[in-house]
Amino acid sequence: MGQPLRELAEKIGARIVGDDSAEITGVASVTAAGKGDIVFAEDEENLAAAFRSHASAVIAGNFAETAKTSKAVLIVADPRLAFARAARLLRNDTGQQTGIHSTAVIHPSARLDAEVSIGAKAVIGQATIGGRSLIGAGCIIGDGVELGVDCEIYPNVTIYPGTRIGSRVIVHAGAVLGSDGFGYVRDPKSGRHEKFPQIGTLEIEDDVEIGANTTIDRGALEVTRIGRGTKIDNLVHIGHNCQFGEDVIIAAQAGFSGSITIENQVVIGGQVGVGEHARIQEGVLLGGQSGVLPKKILRGKGVAFWGTPAKPLREYLRSLASLAQLGKKDKKEQ
Amino acid sequence: MGQPLRELAEKIGARIVGDDSAEITGVASVTAAGKGDIVFAEDEENLAAAFRSHASAVIAGNFAETAKTSKAVLIVADPRLAFARAARLLRNDTGQQTGIHSTAVIHPSARLDAEVSIGAKAVIGQATIGGRSLIGAGCIIGDGVELGVDCEIYPNVTIYPGTRIGSRVIVHAGAVLGSDGFGYVRDPKSGRHEKFPQIGTLEIEDDVEIGANTTIDRGALEVTRIGRGTKIDNLVHIGHNCQFGEDVIIAAQAGFSGSITIENQVVIGGQVGVGEHARIQEGVLLGGQSGVLPKKILRGKGVAFWGTPAKPLREYLRSLASLAQLGKKDKKEQ
Amino acid sequence: MGQPLRELAEKIGARIVGDDSAEITGVASVTAAGKGDIVFAEDEENLAAAFRSHASAVIAGNFAETAKTSKAVLIVADPRLAFARAARLLRNDTGQQTGIHSTAVIHPSARLDAEVSIGAKAVIGQATIGGRSLIGAGCIIGDGVELGVDCEIYPNVTIYPGTRIGSRVIVHAGAVLGSDGFGYVRDPKSGRHEKFPQIGTLEIEDDVEIGANTTIDRGALEVTRIGRGTKIDNLVHIGHNCQFGEDVIIAAQAGFSGSITIENQVVIGGQVGVGEHARIQEGVLLGGQSGVLPKKILRGKGVAFWGTPAKPLREYLRSLASLAQLGKKDKKEQ
Repeated sequence: MGQPLRELAEKIGARIVGDDSAEITGVASVTAAGKGDIVFAEDEENLAAAFRSHASAVIAGNFAETAKTSKAVLIVADPRLAFARAARLLRNDTGQQTGIHSTAVIHPSARLDAEVSIGAKAVIGQATIGGRSLIGAGCIIGDGVELGVDCEIYPNVTIYPGTRIGSRVIVHAGAVLGSDGFGYVRDPKSGRHEKFPQIGTLEIEDDVEIGANTTIDRGALEVTRIGRGTKIDNLVHIGHNCQFGEDVIIAAQAGFSGSITIENQVVIGGQVGVGEHARIQEGVLLGGQSGVLPKKILRGKGVAFWGTPAKPLREYLRSLASLAQLGKKDKKEQ
Repeated sequence: MGQPLRELAEKIGARIVGDDSAEITGVASVTAAGKGDIVFAEDEENLAAAFRSHASAVIAGNFAETAKTSKAVLIVADPRLAFARAARLLRNDTGQQTGIHSTAVIHPSARLDAEVSIGAKAVIGQATIGGRSLIGAGCIIGDGVELGVDCEIYPNVTIYPGTRIGSRVIVHAGAVLGSDGFGYVRDPKSGRHEKFPQIGTLEIEDDVEIGANTTIDRGALEVTRIGRGTKIDNLVHIGHNCQFGEDVIIAAQAGFSGSITIENQVVIGGQVGVGEHARIQEGVLLGGQSGVLPKKILRGKGVAFWGTPAKPLREYLRSLASLAQLGKKDKKEQ
Repeated sequence: MGQPLRELAEKIGARIVGDDSAEITGVASVTAAGKGDIVFAEDEENLAAAFRSHASAVIAGNFAETAKTSKAVLIVADPRLAFARAARLLRNDTGQQTGIHSTAVIHPSARLDAEVSIGAKAVIGQATIGGRSLIGAGCIIGDGVELGVDCEIYPNVTIYPGTRIGSRVIVHAGAVLGSDGFGYVRDPKSGRHEKFPQIGTLEIEDDVEIGANTTIDRGALEVTRIGRGTKIDNLVHIGHNCQFGEDVIIAAQAGFSGSITIENQVVIGGQVGVGEHARIQEGVLLGGQSGVLPKKILRGKGVAFWGTPAKPLREYLRSLASLAQLGKKDKKEQ
């Protein structure tokens, strides 16, 4: 699993200062690093600690060029990014079992491509699992599910029938993909709610990561879609018919009610709530706990919004400041 | 599984215009519909697309009476509601396996009524499962659980011992029913928290639907109750001793701390939080992200509340408007 | 399982008034109590009902000293706390199966200490499980997990490899412990997000309780830590690298983004959100739905904060009052 330092440096676009003969076996923190590990220093402050570590090599910026050390130094423009890439190339073991466990229940018509791993007690319907994908213990994969190559599905995940998932997708434990959306029609006579059919599908594109216990509903009649490279944290809820673009970032416990459009590169803070049919345009940033009203459109690349109802950050901060002033004034007048 | 159009029309109270000889096999969206499917149009705008679809029949309102089409048209007062009913009558396959899987672990004293289905790897304690109910793969059903007829429990659901569930209840994947409430008594001497006993029960009445990864705690000493026809979205938390009425609607990620009363026909928006011992009276509407203080009572059929602490919508909007004005004024004065 | 009343009274520090010969078998609510049960009355109002119950004994305060009753009365300073202790001593059956189920999959190198119970369909990796601990059905316990003695893990819990858990820890169904944190490095050229390695660990100390479907991420490179006696409700999210102190209370659906420090005895309300690198100092109370900005420090034993951004309660209430006043004034001026 190890790699010669020279090869690794080439792959991450780094220039080596010092001895380039080491074999690198993994990434580590400065405190946990041992021989064979590579660590990183984002700035000069953290460089000394990196040098004192037991790591075999240090990824750092130009500031490390002339530093005195016996360690190999890999000079890059963005040490954090280079470290992340090194981690991917070295693929620290995730601790999941490989191979197909004898206790897994696999439908005879399921198609498992080469080097697929299925954990103990997993249940696989008439699904298609792409090469080298890994299904954790206790996962339930429904009929008609299609999963691409190199996916990693952690234990106890449930994927409803018909869900289509791209390649290199990571899904953490307990997530539920493709569940029924929340749709009813109220009978005005009886006041009761008739279930509206939830028979659409869910499509998740390549390179998406989905956090633990997150839930994504399939479309009512059409498709819920999560675009390529989008990253979703834990306990997020995405309702039926939502359309998420590419490279979107969604922090934990955010919620999206239904038929919402989130364009590319949007960043959503924790516990944000978005109402149905809203549209968040490309590159918008939404601060934690913000609320977006149904049908609302937010626009502006790199423009931050905050509050409920969400407003441009500057405007919202002004309101908060005015409110604080007012409170102080009222107090004096009492 | 199909039904003659005439029979279906009669069951949903529709009048047929055009050829009434078709056999209907399912509901579908206008874009996905094929021969044998029925679609719906809520208004004239959507009628043309419905007629262009490959569906065999269209549910629509009076506005479609004189439309020119070769398709059968079912005229009803509320096309959306009629479509939902047709969907129920045609029961599109949910993709769950039927029968009792050989890998399920079923306690010898469990009572399974006729036509019960148990998925692979499910674990059933000394429980009672009503006729035609379906338990998904990987579900864990504790001792003493009672489940009515025609329930549908999706995979990886956990039901704690002693929970009682009515008929036609749907529970989505990963939900946890009957877990311990969050109750402790602080020892003033040590500052430590002693667990208060959580030995009550959870009762869920007929026709309730519960979303994926939602959690409902059982009572501490008494009963947590969810009334008939109440619909609960994903990732909702309901604490111990809560009493929910009938036909309540609860959107995703709402949270109810404990000993709360929610009366019939209340509508709760997403991410709403309600404090302990609060009471929301019949027919109140609570906007998304609202917060209700402990012991607070909200009243008024059809009255909407919003904000934290929740106020009548008009009052809250006035406050928001005043705040925005104030922010602008302060800006000018700077 | 029963205990002589005299023994029980001694253990909870109570003085017996009346007949002390009963055998006590469990705690119960006043309405559900039968022969052998013990109930409690927190104040004089509830005393009559306790006496009318079918319980064999009543825990109460000094106010019950001279009450006329045929029941045994246990006089204590804090009846609620004494009742909680009695419940622990009498250990009502939690309904989980004991013993090692034949369908559990246990790695040959796993170490199970004396009297460990493993439920049906559980999957245990190369883990260490302390004496008398109970692993529920369908749990997935990864390689390298260490679990102390007398733990109770409810069904369908997933514990990622390498997680270390102390003794007497309770984890409710569906919780996920040790999942990957939410960390990426954005590549400014492509706009894509590279996964930052999440290879740290999660340590949970003694006497912690964790609610259903809660998720706690392991550290990115270092350790996420939950201190002794901390109690966590359902659907809570705790991000990577967080450091929680002892005897912290966290209500349902609260969220902690990452690298946050929560000191001892802090109390966090439901749906609170805390930004990265914030610090909540010892004994602070945070009201429900509050939001704490990244890097913010809140201090003050017993000081309550509320709102987003969180402010001292008095200050925040003043702002709310001013805002309400302003709304009324603007209305008059219209």
